[in-house]
Order: sequence, then structure tokens, then C-alpha cells
Amino acid sequence: MDLSELRIDGKRLQNTLEEMATIGATPGGGVQRLALTDEDKQARDLFVQWLQDLNLKVTIDEMGNIFGKREGTNDDLPPIVSGSHLDSQPKGGRFDGVLGVMGPLEVLRTLHENNIETIRSIVIVDWTNEEGSRFAPCMVGSGVWAGALDRDWVYQRTALNDTRFIDELERIGYRGETATTKWPIHAYYEYHIEQGPILEIERKIIGAPKGILCLHWYDIYLEGEANQVGPTPMEGRHDALCAAAEMILKVNRLPEKKGGNLVATVGEIQNYPNSRNIIPDKVHFTVDIRSWDDVHALNAWYDLRRDFEVIADQRGCPINIEETWRVEHARFDERLVKRVLDTAEELEHSNLYMFSGAGHDASYMNQIAATAMIFVPSLDGRSHVEVENTSWKDCEAGANVLLHCMLKSANETG
Amino acid sequence: MDLSELRIDGKRLQNTLEEMATIGATPGGGVQRLALTDEDKQARDLFVQWLQDLNLKVTIDEMGNIFGKREGTNDDLPPIVSGSHLDSQPKGGRFDGVLGVMGPLEVLRTLHENNIETIRSIVIVDWTNEEGSRFAPCMVGSGVWAGALDRDWVYQRTALNDTRFIDELERIGYRGETATTKWPIHAYYEYHIEQGPILEIERKIIGAPKGILCLHWYDIYLEGEANQVGPTPMEGRHDALCAAAEMILKVNRLPEKKGGNLVATVGEIQNYPNSRNIIPDKVHFTVDIRSWDDVHALNAWYDLRRDFEVIADQRGCPINIEETWRVEHARFDERLVKRVLDTAEELEHSNLYMFSGAGHDASYMNQIAATAMIFVPSLDGRSHVEVENTSWKDCEAGANVLLHCMLKSANETG
Repeated sequence: MDLSELRIDGKRLQNTLEEMATIGATPGGGVQRLALTDEDKQARDLFVQWLQDLNLKVTIDEMGNIFGKREGTNDDLPPIVSGSHLDSQPKGGRFDGVLGVMGPLEVLRTLHENNIETIRSIVIVDWTNEEGSRFAPCMVGSGVWAGALDRDWVYQRTALNDTRFIDELERIGYRGETATTKWPIHAYYEYHIEQGPILEIERKIIGAPKGILCLHWYDIYLEGEANQVGPTPMEGRHDALCAAAEMILKVNRLPEKKGGNLVATVGEIQNYPNSRNIIPDKVHFTVDIRSWDDVHALNAWYDLRRDFEVIADQRGCPINIEETWRVEHARFDERLVKRVLDTAEELEHSNLYMFSGAGHDASYMNQIAATAMIFVPSLDGRSHVEVENTSWKDCEAGANVLLHCMLKSANETG
Repeated sequence: MDLSELRIDGKRLQNTLEEMATIGATPGGGVQRLALTDEDKQARDLFVQWLQDLNLKVTIDEMGNIFGKREGTNDDLPPIVSGSHLDSQPKGGRFDGVLGVMGPLEVLRTLHENNIETIRSIVIVDWTNEEGSRFAPCMVGSGVWAGALDRDWVYQRTALNDTRFIDELERIGYRGETATTKWPIHAYYEYHIEQGPILEIERKIIGAPKGILCLHWYDIYLEGEANQVGPTPMEGRHDALCAAAEMILKVNRLPEKKGGNLVATVGEIQNYPNSRNIIPDKVHFTVDIRSWDDVHALNAWYDLRRDFEVIADQRGCPINIEETWRVEHARFDERLVKRVLDTAEELEHSNLYMFSGAGHDASYMNQIAATAMIFVPSLDGRSHVEVENTSWKDCEAGANVLLHCMLKSANETG
């Protein structure tokens, strides 16, 4: 057959996504399938079953990453890999991660039923704990595989109830024996929902991010002076929550102030003693800064930090700043990114060269192998929420782009 | 003896306060003695023992209020009452409430050892659950006594772990049989630490508040739109925490904007989902407004409320406002307040005519009987914290003012 005519089965992809969405389904229409819970185990079991139905060679490594391999005609050449994750955020959506595993599964089913051989082997993967919402940090399965994180350090990470990662991994029966360590890969494709509104705003179906924004995480601790609110005059108060409020607004205005490619957010805050008639004497909040330009992000942070120190000084609220995490921006493989755009053109899907604001397993894979991502639109740009949605038509379009990108890479001999 | 020469025993008062402070003592030097806990029971048992040592007639009513009565020569005349509360805030101080119970106890010990008779009877009281930090609301013992709160409604109030007030009252053995209902009182004096910095700033020892500020409590609920922070542009965000931050600063600036006697505070905030990489989509925070002028406080609130609505509109964050609680300002008995000031003068203690910013059992007593309070300085104005402190010298001074105010009232026949 003419390979260029080949298409995946959109209805089958939809059914597969819908069946997977029943595991950990929430009343609000989303899923809650935190890493290494019973729901995660159920999803893994179903996924492994589907891999076996295709006669793939299934490997589970010591991080619980699940690989399914379809042999090529020349197994000496490094394979093509595609995958993402089956775990979700608490009250998360039905597409984040899952689409990137069910997508290549649909690609393999399509190759299987059409008896299509490829020169290189094709490997599908479910990476363990991408979300990091039960065990921090995120993306540990791909991180250990890529050599960026230490396996034993991850094993000892604990959930809020002090359960250890390693114990939960063993409990659900997914601590495999294969070492989690990198091997040569010819091309890595990750198919994912955009998780932002840009494709929708630009009215495009396929996004090809040139890479992932840099990510800076900061933790801010403020001290104030607790007092009964009634008898304490406004003058001379040291209200840690007021200081935090000023700082939160500085964060919110930072992108406008600095211009360029930049987002900045305070997502988390704790206030103490958090009693309506006591002046707050302790506040912790987080700052998340992202940009394509690492230096720009750092300069913006230095500017913000100076503002924080001035506010802390004016309010008489001592400040302690932790620079918690910094990941540089990741530029994907230019040839593969262009292939995504070209393939979308060939399939007559509108397309956009863009950024990824969120981190993905592709961030770590990009350190090891030529990597690209394929984005499809998120309805209203919503993600990490139960109403997260992507049209079935767009899911199908993205999977067809993935199919042809994978086929092209899998039949490259050089 | 010449009654005007009579003085309480400052060292004995100190010892008594120190002994009481061992019950529920915290490592930080404060006490944690929440209402109807084992610590509250221990404090009550000790207090009752001390009342019995003076041969007082002890009565425990059905709210657990403890009364100790010293008979006057004419028991037909309404008595003098003085008291406060033995319960504390979580990690509270050693003086708030306790000083107002140990003070009149020291007065009664002084009368006892000097065989001093009074015309009117004198009653000392420990009111149940003034703080309201385990079972909301506060001041329920005096509130039910004064007829302002319903006994059975209070009985059904629950703590965070769903324990009922009535069950805990019975468990500690302090559900008495005497009905909790008001009876005629000639004068009520409440001795208390100031819980603010005014006496210290003005370098005065004795404060006589003209009354208690009005108190308005509001609960604000904001909705935003949750999204992954990385891929969501700043434009078009609906960040509920940013809206809250703007509102918190409006509250903080309200007293300066409106002038006059006014304090305004946000003490409590909850943020959801409170994850560092998700835009907040739900925030609750409280507003506490106090003033001597009820109309001024209400006008300030209307002004603030308009600001809130504008901010909510600009940020696209729907707002829901609950007007949770309003208590009008309470003006104490002018003759009794003047007596406190005059008595301080006679004893050669510097003194100040002032306000009480905090609520006290005296608020409810003031609805039933001629009422006044006696304040002594709080070190650095700190209260509701473990470092809450008042010098032993000032404790003694206040108790002597209390002694002579009580004596004067107790020997009034008209």
C-alpha cells in the first residue's frame, strides 16, 4: 500500500481514551489517577494488556516505566520511541499524558492491522510519575532513565502520609528488574494536549513547539508580628499577609513590566496562624517564572527580588528566599520539529511553530535523543482540571501526524 | 482599719498566676488551655479548690460558669461581680482572661485575711469559653447568662473533630444544675490586660475603656479559573489569588483612607487548589472591621465593598460576600468608668481613658449591669501569643484598683 495514504482509526482512538478515562473517573468528568495508587495500577494493567494484544515485547524497568517494543527489520539500528504518562493530577483531566500514550498505541495498532514493517524498531512508553503531585518532583521516570535523577533518591521520596515511593511501586507490582538507564534512540516524539489557549486563539490544529520554556521556582517566607486585631493600631503593625499581598501583585505585574516572553505566577500560599482576629505572623508563598529566554527570566527574578526586599523592609517583615528549582529552556531537535510542521502540512492540518510552557517527559528525553512534540488544542486552554477537553477530531489529527512522523523516522537508515 | 490603706498581696497574686500558668504550659512560655479540654478542667478544679479555701459558696451553672459568692451584711441587695475566663487561645498567653479571674480572687483573699465585711455580697466568676477558638462563637458563657445566646444552640456547637460542646462540658464534669440566667447585679468589673500597645505608648499603668469597639466580620469568596501556569498567557487569566491580594491591600489601607477611629484586618485566607503550578481558582478570606463609631464602620465597609466589586469585575473573578457577624459598640457605665480612673488617681497610678478594641465577657455583662473594665499594659502590645506579658508590678497595681473599686461599689447602699 501507499504509506502516505495510511490513517489511524479515530473512532478506535476515542474508544481507547474513553475506556482509560473510566479508571479513576471523577464525578466532574475528569480523572484522578495519582502515581502508584490503585488507579495507576489499574491503568497500567489495562495498558500492558493492550500491548500484549499487539504481541509487543513488554519490559518493566526498576522505576516502573513500561515499554512495549515492535521489532523493525533492522534491530541493530536505534529505535523510534514515543510515549508520555498515564498518571494524572488530583481532579485532573482525561487527556493530559494519556493522549501521548494512547496516541502511539493507536499508531502501533494501525501498523499492526496493516502488516506494515518498519526498518527501525518502534517503542511505546508509559513514564512513571510525570505529574509529581503525589511524590515530588515530577517527571522522575524519564528523569532517572535519562540519568538526570538518581534512582535511589527517587525511591525514598515520600507522599504526604509518609508512604515511600519504592514501597508503593512494589505494592502495585510495578518494580521491574530491568535497569532504568538510557539507551540509544533515533527519535523521540511526545504527543500531548497544548494545555494553553494559543492554538485555539490562532485557530490552528497542530502545534510544534520549538522547545520548553525555562522554569524557575522560588519559595518565599515572611515573618510578621501576631497580635489581637482589635486593640492593635494600624500604625506599627507587621502584617505578613499584607506584605505577601503586595509581593503577589508584583509577581502578577512582572511580565508586563519586563516585556518579552515571560509568565509569572503565585499558585500556593500558607498563612499563619490563619485566624480572623489575629494579625498574620508567618506566610509562605511560591513563585513560578517561565520564559524561552533564561537570561530574561533571571533578570526579571533579580528585579522582583529587589521589589520583595523593599516591601519586606517597608512592612518590617523579615523575608527569607529559597531558590528552589531552575531548569533551563530546552530546544527540541530542529529537524524533527520541522518534520512535525511539514507532516501537518502534508495532511492538510493548519499548524503553528510555538513554545511549550509546561514541562514534559520530553524535557529529559531531549537531553538524550532527537526530540519533538506534537500539540493539539485544549478547549478554552484549560488543563489540570476536570473540564480539560480536546475534540475527538483534533485527537485524530494529531495521531495521524504522529503516525507519519514516526513512520518517516522509523524508515530512516542514516 | 482604714480601708483606704488596704492593699492586695502582689507576690501572692504572682504566685497564683504562675501556678495557673503551669496548666497547659507550652514550651514557648505561653499556655494552651482550650475550652472544655482536660487542661480547662484542671484549671477549673484548681480554681474551685481556691474558692473553697476561702469558704465561698460555689455554684456551677448549666453552662459550666463557675461562681464563688462571699456574703455581704445585706444579702438582699444585688451583689458586686467580677471575673473573666480561664480558657486560652491555642498557643495563647498566661494573662489573657486569667488575670481577670485571679485578680478578684486576690481581692477576696485580701478581704478574707483582713476580716473585712462588705454591705453587698461579692461574686467572682469564671465564664465558660470566652475565646471561642475550639467552639465558635466566643463569650458563650456570659452570652447565655445575659440572655443574648440560646443555651441549647450553644450546646450543639461542634469543634473541628465534630465533638459537641454539651458532650465535652459533661465529660469534664462541669455541666452544673443551676439555670444559666441573669440576676440583678449592682456592678460588674472585669480586670484584663489591654492586648494592645496604647498604655505602653502613652506610658500609663491603668486604662479605663469607655467601652468596646463595634465589630464587623465578613467572609469573601472569590472564583477564578484554574490552569497550568506555564502555557497560560498572563492576558485572559482569572487568578483568584491576585484578586484577593488587591482586596487585602484595600482592607489594609481602609483606615487611612476613611480616617477616624477604625482598624481593618484580613487574618485568614484559604487558596485552592494551592498548587505552585496551577492558577488559583478559589479563594476565601475574612475581613474584620472595628470602630467606636458603628456608622463610620458601616460606611467604610460599603466603600470597601464597592472596591471589592470593581476588582472582582476587572479580574473576571466572581465574588460572593457574606456579612457574617456585626456587634454594635458597647458603652460602659460612665459612673463606674470614672470610678476606675478616680481610684487609679487615689492610688497614684497614671491612668488613661481609652477604648477596648477586643471583645470581652464585659460586652454581654454591660447589657445587664453597670459595667467597667480595668486594663493594665501588655508588653509590646502583644496578646494571643505565647510571649504575651505584663509586669508583675502592673498586675499588682491593677488588682489594687480593682480592690478599691469593688469595695466602693460593695459598700454602696443605693
